[in-house]
Amino acid sequence: MNIGFVGVGRMGANMARRLKERGFQVTTLYDINRAAVTALAQELSATACPTLGDVAAGADFIFTVVSDDSAMRSIFRGDDNLLVNARGKLFINCATVSPDVHVEIEQLARNAGAETLETCMASSITQAREGSLYLMCGGSAETFRRAEPLLRELSSSLRFVGKTGEAAKVKALVNMVMNINTAGLAEGLGLGQALGLDLTMLREVFAQTGAASRVLQTDGEDMQNRDHATFFSAAHAAKDSGIALSLGEAAGLHLPLARATKQQYVRMIAEGLGELDKSGIAELTFKNRHTRRHQG
Amino acid sequence: MNIGFVGVGRMGANMARRLKERGFQVTTLYDINRAAVTALAQELSATACPTLGDVAAGADFIFTVVSDDSAMRSIFRGDDNLLVNARGKLFINCATVSPDVHVEIEQLARNAGAETLETCMASSITQAREGSLYLMCGGSAETFRRAEPLLRELSSSLRFVGKTGEAAKVKALVNMVMNINTAGLAEGLGLGQALGLDLTMLREVFAQTGAASRVLQTDGEDMQNRDHATFFSAAHAAKDSGIALSLGEAAGLHLPLARATKQQYVRMIAEGLGELDKSGIAELTFKNRHTRRHQG
Repeated sequence: MNIGFVGVGRMGANMARRLKERGFQVTTLYDINRAAVTALAQELSATACPTLGDVAAGADFIFTVVSDDSAMRSIFRGDDNLLVNARGKLFINCATVSPDVHVEIEQLARNAGAETLETCMASSITQAREGSLYLMCGGSAETFRRAEPLLRELSSSLRFVGKTGEAAKVKALVNMVMNINTAGLAEGLGLGQALGLDLTMLREVFAQTGAASRVLQTDGEDMQNRDHATFFSAAHAAKDSGIALSLGEAAGLHLPLARATKQQYVRMIAEGLGELDKSGIAELTFKNRHTRRHQG
Repeated sequence: MNIGFVGVGRMGANMARRLKERGFQVTTLYDINRAAVTALAQELSATACPTLGDVAAGADFIFTVVSDDSAMRSIFRGDDNLLVNARGKLFINCATVSPDVHVEIEQLARNAGAETLETCMASSITQAREGSLYLMCGGSAETFRRAEPLLRELSSSLRFVGKTGEAAKVKALVNMVMNINTAGLAEGLGLGQALGLDLTMLREVFAQTGAASRVLQTDGEDMQNRDHATFFSAAHAAKDSGIALSLGEAAGLHLPLARATKQQYVRMIAEGLGELDKSGIAELTFKNRHTRRHQG
């Protein structure tokens, strides 16, 4: 069984490394970053393909790990696209994109005699390398079973959520709530610092009380220490909160927290902080941090 | 050692029950709710005092468990107040009030020859009854040591935070972050329902991912099932978020999540939902819930 990858950023590359290590044939790779794809092709003895059509031609299962709705549409609908001679292929679509886009691509693939499986990832680079991703899949149950052995090697938790688009909804909600908790934590720690409190003590109290959260564990200390090495960028957070907000607007809901959170992440992008980790939102809420950055 | 209580709502009453059970003499009680204080006095063989002065006269340690800044000021500064003949008494002030109020009362008590210990509680009614409160104290270390044996009987975690006012700051931050996480969770579950997702599945995914939080454990199922029996009311949430926001404004910070959260809880009060539990915020974010309530 041959495996292809479209999009070999840090997530895609680590998933490819993991599968290769587990004995799978990683044959064809594609990325608009030619240097990255060439280097990974050498590392994995795979082919850095010149076209998307070549990726599909040389693989049975093709993982797509691209950045957003527009990138997803372009790899499946552009002049050069994955669906040329795609009969019998299975596309495992891992990008966090709008649910509608998954549904649209499923239909296009079906018309080309191919299958798709929406596979949303709720974890990061380290988990990709270690095969301990949290995966949520949407599509037909049959397609899921076909991809399952492969996905087991990448995940510590694998969940079939329902039809295509459902996993993207769940993923959008996970990230929406995670981003709200992150933005809220940044406000709590920022205010704590302004009040002269010991932030290590404050994080300890948060962890033992109703303020406890997963993001307190993953991002609290980084906010305190200004360590914003990127696992999940502020720009991604803005995009994902935006997907959830659009779904909310379409449903006629009033979501003031989600809106305020998206505005904060959009502000990070506007102020040149979009490539910091999501924990970098503390740069907006701690007194004098971002100002100092401007002045320095 | 005789113990008095001012404010015998569910928290105060349960703390008094616990101390009595552990062998302490609960002697004097006071509450503006005469029925409540009379019933508790009978239950604990204590005296329901007609004046605040009597509470202090009949006890060595006086717990105050009142509702807000204005109630705190009135019991220490009103025509009838706790500081008449208060020499040598120790007031253990448990209400969640502004840090400045604790400092102001400490000074008033000192002038009257009494001591105060700010004792903030980050837990609820059940923990009060079981003696498993999470307590954070502010004041002098000597006063803390004097009250410590008593406080140990009420708590599973007892922490001396620093000088008077510091514990109230930490408490305000805990509740600010908790309220943000609660409001955000309500939006996530509300949107999940609007998108037709299975909320039990969604809560399970939240619990396993970056969306996990303490309030997901304590309030998630209640939001789904509309079980808003009150442990911590929306009105209290609005007050506590308001304390934190005032501290933030005084510090010149921009806290959009805390602000949006406070607005949601204030909206609950305005719409007659202020005495629901904080989980009742889901009534604002789930489609058709609050509308239906109006129509019904």
